[in-house]
Amino acid sequence: MCHAILLVSCPDQKGITASMTNFIYENNGNIVHADQHIDEQSNTFFMRVEWSLDGFDIGKEDIGEHFKAIANKFQMIWDLSFSDQRLRLGIFVSRQLHCLQDLLYRQHAGQLACEIPMIISNHPDAKAIADDFGIKFLEIPVTEDNKREQEEKEIKALNEEGIDLIVLARYHQIFTENFVSTFRNRVINIHHSFLPAFAGGNPYLQAYEKGVKIIGATSHYVTEKLDDGPIIEQDTVRFSHRDSLDDLVRKGEDLEKMVLSRAVRLALQKKILSYGNKTVIFD
Amino acid sequence: MCHAILLVSCPDQKGITASMTNFIYENNGNIVHADQHIDEQSNTFFMRVEWSLDGFDIGKEDIGEHFKAIANKFQMIWDLSFSDQRLRLGIFVSRQLHCLQDLLYRQHAGQLACEIPMIISNHPDAKAIADDFGIKFLEIPVTEDNKREQEEKEIKALNEEGIDLIVLARYHQIFTENFVSTFRNRVINIHHSFLPAFAGGNPYLQAYEKGVKIIGATSHYVTEKLDDGPIIEQDTVRFSHRDSLDDLVRKGEDLEKMVLSRAVRLALQKKILSYGNKTVIFD
Amino acid sequence: MCHAILLVSCPDQKGITASMTNFIYENNGNIVHADQHIDEQSNTFFMRVEWSLDGFDIGKEDIGEHFKAIANKFQMIWDLSFSDQRLRLGIFVSRQLHCLQDLLYRQHAGQLACEIPMIISNHPDAKAIADDFGIKFLEIPVTEDNKREQEEKEIKALNEEGIDLIVLARYHQIFTENFVSTFRNRVINIHHSFLPAFAGGNPYLQAYEKGVKIIGATSHYVTEKLDDGPIIEQDTVRFSHRDSLDDLVRKGEDLEKMVLSRAVRLALQKKILSYGNKTVIFD
Amino acid sequence: MCHAILLVSCPDQKGITASMTNFIYENNGNIVHADQHIDEQSNTFFMRVEWSLDGFDIGKEDIGEHFKAIANKFQMIWDLSFSDQRLRLGIFVSRQLHCLQDLLYRQHAGQLACEIPMIISNHPDAKAIADDFGIKFLEIPVTEDNKREQEEKEIKALNEEGIDLIVLARYHQIFTENFVSTFRNRVINIHHSFLPAFAGGNPYLQAYEKGVKIIGATSHYVTEKLDDGPIIEQDTVRFSHRDSLDDLVRKGEDLEKMVLSRAVRLALQKKILSYGNKTVIFD
Repeated sequence: MCHAILLVSCPDQKGITASMTNFIYENNGNIVHADQHIDEQSNTFFMRVEWSLDGFDIGKEDIGEHFKAIANKFQMIWDLSFSDQRLRLGIFVSRQLHCLQDLLYRQHAGQLACEIPMIISNHPDAKAIADDFGIKFLEIPVTEDNKREQEEKEIKALNEEGIDLIVLARYHQIFTENFVSTFRNRVINIHHSFLPAFAGGNPYLQAYEKGVKIIGATSHYVTEKLDDGPIIEQDTVRFSHRDSLDDLVRKGEDLEKMVLSRAVRLALQKKILSYGNKTVIFD
Repeated sequence: MCHAILLVSCPDQKGITASMTNFIYENNGNIVHADQHIDEQSNTFFMRVEWSLDGFDIGKEDIGEHFKAIANKFQMIWDLSFSDQRLRLGIFVSRQLHCLQDLLYRQHAGQLACEIPMIISNHPDAKAIADDFGIKFLEIPVTEDNKREQEEKEIKALNEEGIDLIVLARYHQIFTENFVSTFRNRVINIHHSFLPAFAGGNPYLQAYEKGVKIIGATSHYVTEKLDDGPIIEQDTVRFSHRDSLDDLVRKGEDLEKMVLSRAVRLALQKKILSYGNKTVIFD
Repeated sequence: MCHAILLVSCPDQKGITASMTNFIYENNGNIVHADQHIDEQSNTFFMRVEWSLDGFDIGKEDIGEHFKAIANKFQMIWDLSFSDQRLRLGIFVSRQLHCLQDLLYRQHAGQLACEIPMIISNHPDAKAIADDFGIKFLEIPVTEDNKREQEEKEIKALNEEGIDLIVLARYHQIFTENFVSTFRNRVINIHHSFLPAFAGGNPYLQAYEKGVKIIGATSHYVTEKLDDGPIIEQDTVRFSHRDSLDDLVRKGEDLEKMVLSRAVRLALQKKILSYGNKTVIFD
Repeated sequence: MCHAILLVSCPDQKGITASMTNFIYENNGNIVHADQHIDEQSNTFFMRVEWSLDGFDIGKEDIGEHFKAIANKFQMIWDLSFSDQRLRLGIFVSRQLHCLQDLLYRQHAGQLACEIPMIISNHPDAKAIADDFGIKFLEIPVTEDNKREQEEKEIKALNEEGIDLIVLARYHQIFTENFVSTFRNRVINIHHSFLPAFAGGNPYLQAYEKGVKIIGATSHYVTEKLDDGPIIEQDTVRFSHRDSLDDLVRKGEDLEKMVLSRAVRLALQKKILSYGNKTVIFD
């Protein structure tokens, strides 16, 4: 049964929840999940509501039009989606393929309700896997000199393929501001450290040399500032002097796979609202 | 500013959320937290809603009366409380005092918004701490033969002191069905294992002899069946062959303190709804 | 550079460590890892020592013969192995393939230093993966009536293939005592619960219905008693009322993969000593 | 029964373990724990060995003298201690008292085998607790101007009291290089973040504003560079948008207590070897 999902944020005031739930009730919808949050510092209201369209009086294509009145009244930023939509993912990867492999396996196993029509890489390593899964593979090498024009190719390809969400599954290139602003809040990265610790290059080596007792991984939206966008999900694992740098990498890769796949799943389920440099996760 | 909190459960149907949020909005309340859950197996609706009484049209003492119409319409089980109420805790303890000490410290530090007017024990060990904190201490030794009559004393004392919530902070006596049914959903226990593993006596020794690699602690409501009531909170910690039985106990006691204090805090904040043999935790 | 690894256990007495380290030193070996443990309850000594054979005076094939004098003196149970040996794994699986896939991926990625020449299943589902990886696949359906004779086939096949270690990667058949005793301490199982909780069938459903707040996975050696052998590794993850039974299974499968792969890795690195119904893990 | 404990580090070469274990064996000692580690990058050997003095041929006061020959041969940095020694702890604290309280409780409960004869603070808040436990309390306010002379008072008091180990239980003053070098590897700090993230002031607010999904605490030795010394222990806990800054502080304080007490316990048990800017933990 198809569900509708509304994600909204707006300045807090009385009556928002009542207006939204009335809208659903008066049109014969049955709420299956509802969660809200108020950020007191900025006085912002956030809500995610999901309701069954079984017997709903308004057709899917008209819901947005009908909801507009409420949205305008409360100055909402809002996003309407449907549980039977399958977002289209584009995955960027460099030479470490474990996260890519993990995402493809999970999608195949039904854990990620999406399509994955395109993989882009600055190296040829992922071609074999892409072929295995019947996914279009674009090798687009990037240098400092050709970055801007190569990104234009990427943007064109992503748009032609109708990509909704971009996942950087260990893609070791920094995008220009142009690329970032083109896909704002639509690019999810995995960084192999517990951000903000060890931002930038080679975080595993940094962690090893620092002698930390716990390592982490962080999934976040990409913004103009490197490794600094709104954090979606993090996790950590113990590390000891008995572990070598290789062990650290191995344990870290397990973390990366879990953290990235959770973040992607949250995005597909429309459970993330980002505001300022933070996120609300309706899990 | 005082908030009102409604905890409700009822058979799921359309319009429940709308009715509740309308009730608040039409009387000029501002919702600060709202969370709901639907158990699909039993088709049960659960909701916790908290709203500011600043400018609310209905006086605190009349809210229940006014809400009744909605409650009856949806056959709700409901509980109304206010953020400025301080529940009265009665703590039972035997000879291990770490959980008691931890609760008293947290209450003192402002982490537990409650009064703790009474401590009951089957041993004299806790008397000194009770005296330190100026809390009434009842030593009520229990044997198989006198259990029923001693429990009557306890029930009388708890009622006279107006105790709302009973916490078993490592109290090593099993209550009769009479006691349990007198305080249904009002007695929280800490069991020093990851239930349902190692129910019953000496769970640490059981865990040690079993050779588990992780130990746990479980806080749950007390029911007629030993160590089997609805689970409120659990946590675990790693254990290795390098740890002795003493280490296991020490690590376990740290877990107990955290798990029990979290459960008590959730209860005080009216964030627990128990149904069947499970709980919904609105955290 | 090849290392030798000695795993020993014996009644504790003075001089064991000195005798062993002298044996290595006097023959010009350089110890790279040494760890020991004493179980005080049973007065048992355990040691794992690993040394470089670079410049060692005794040839690999003669080390055992030379070490015998020490072993006999202290009544040791001992196991000598070499870091350049690649154990041969046989994997049993039923219809859930995530653990199998994970093990094959890790072996392929160099995380598991072993050969995997054979996969056995009571179902045909894993054949495609086995073919992909070029691994011999035996489909051996088992019923109550033919179990004994099918196990004979399995034992024969495993022996012919020179299998050192058997991994049950979600294999849902209970072996007879005959099979278990044939491969004592050589069969590693993954059970999808935090044992000893939820032993037996459908642990995820058991956990869901119990309303636990944390779920687990356990890897252990297989013994005659179901889900009761020495525990090698366990891990846990949080679970809430917001998670469905499907979520529980998905989270659990991630745990299973990690816990089983860690246990297999420990076995390959000769870091496990089992005694009584427990294990010492030299991690 | 009294045990001797040797902690050594030296350039790695053949025969170190054999020499040490022979020394114990030939003098009729029985090793109860032995663990070693080799840092391959710096080719450094580390060992902790603990043996029973029951029947040992050398008197406690002469062991060091006898061991010197081995120590010199291998150019060891070494530390000899005995399990019946109770180190003397001096605790520094400012206004947050939870870590102090926790350490005093644990010492009282027998979890920390040490004496705590002195508490020093730049504020008067801890005086009542110090009095309760019968511990000498020095209030030594510090300003930028008088820091050097106040530290001289502290150093004098610590030396007069025979303090072996200094614990900064949320002491919010930065020591001068003079103080740090006087007590090198003898000052343990708790920093309320997952270092190296959020070093410096107000790490909880930093973490809250960054929107991290996990918070941490770090115990480390104090060095000249702020919040940068060798890490002894770390731990983390989940944090979500549902948690307020107050919740973050409360959860963080629980972490701090556990992490600091574990670090102090490791130091008392002589299980920490620091080298370069890292530690080896023989747990």
